[in-house]
Amino acid sequence: MTPRVEDAAAQRGRGRRPGGPDTRAAIVDAARSSFAANGYDKASLRGIARDAGVDPALVHHYFDGKAALFAETMAVPVNPSELIERVLEGDRERLGWRLVDTFLTVWEPPERREALVALVRSSMTSEDAARMVREFLGREVFGRIASSTGAADPQLSGSLAASQMIGLVIARYVVRVPGVATASRAELIERLGPVLQGYLVDEARRPE
Amino acid sequence: MTPRVEDAAAQRGRGRRPGGPDTRAAIVDAARSSFAANGYDKASLRGIARDAGVDPALVHHYFDGKAALFAETMAVPVNPSELIERVLEGDRERLGWRLVDTFLTVWEPPERREALVALVRSSMTSEDAARMVREFLGREVFGRIASSTGAADPQLSGSLAASQMIGLVIARYVVRVPGVATASRAELIERLGPVLQGYLVDEARRPE
Repeated sequence: MTPRVEDAAAQRGRGRRPGGPDTRAAIVDAARSSFAANGYDKASLRGIARDAGVDPALVHHYFDGKAALFAETMAVPVNPSELIERVLEGDRERLGWRLVDTFLTVWEPPERREALVALVRSSMTSEDAARMVREFLGREVFGRIASSTGAADPQLSGSLAASQMIGLVIARYVVRVPGVATASRAELIERLGPVLQGYLVDEARRPE
Repeated sequence: MTPRVEDAAAQRGRGRRPGGPDTRAAIVDAARSSFAANGYDKASLRGIARDAGVDPALVHHYFDGKAALFAETMAVPVNPSELIERVLEGDRERLGWRLVDTFLTVWEPPERREALVALVRSSMTSEDAARMVREFLGREVFGRIASSTGAADPQLSGSLAASQMIGLVIARYVVRVPGVATASRAELIERLGPVLQGYLVDEARRPE
């Protein structure tokens, strides 16, 4: 992706960094620091642009919103909103399985996993990292899915789904509990699919 | 629990610590250090007795095996084997719910939770603590239950159950994800019961 020349040119003469690969990297660096220091909710795209020395329009030019920029700082080269849309769009009867599959696609590549595992690991001891997990994974990802499926208590349903996936990541990649640490991707999808389905979809069908 | 006088007397004159409340505390202290240094599997009751300067018979007098002694070092005043027996003994159709109930009973009292949360937190950064979680929670607790229910793949089934409960503990007590952090005990039992049931019991019924 190359910056539009007019955006970059528009910044010249204002003492701001023009567009280009360095600009994109500077935005990601500023974002990483800002998310760590302020948490997901309080970090603003405007503040990140200021820290990076670029016009806010350039942040919007490179990144499709805060969630996408956060994912980029975690070395996840995909827009979480698009992934969530894809999970929500398909057959509702298979949503749980699709979610586990998508989640593993994001976590499995070793170079990416390292950044994600570091975040989860930090969330045990750092309130800043805990807030990121709460606000991003808990609310932006699983909370949003639970709201879209019409679960009776989206916050509880979403956070239970998040708790299972956090536990999976820890048991598989950090603590390496035999069984879940060596299970194939297909086995995990088969066993965890119905659990996520239960938390996020079946619950919505219960009479209230 | 008071030590039997003859046990204590039997140790006199061998230069070893006699029985008494101090002896019990010394054994727990030695056990805590030994579990931390050697892991659950490699820590031996004989080695712990030696470190505490008491006869091995006294360790057996005070504690009903290694699991019970480990639980004591974690400030859990119950024998895990007895709890597991109680979970396994009742109606098989409600095992998952009973397990969540029992698990929360162990974890909920704040003074106890502190030691348990510290263990889980340490397991993220310390290989020693990770080994404790793997060997104790993964195998001795959930692995044993999965083996007893006749699950097709007890290691995978047990470790998946462990992953959900580790994730629950982290989401509820450490990261405090809204929803699961404030849910009532009854809500958690209702929502998590069928999940544990699915991992540990229903799986056993699937045709192979």
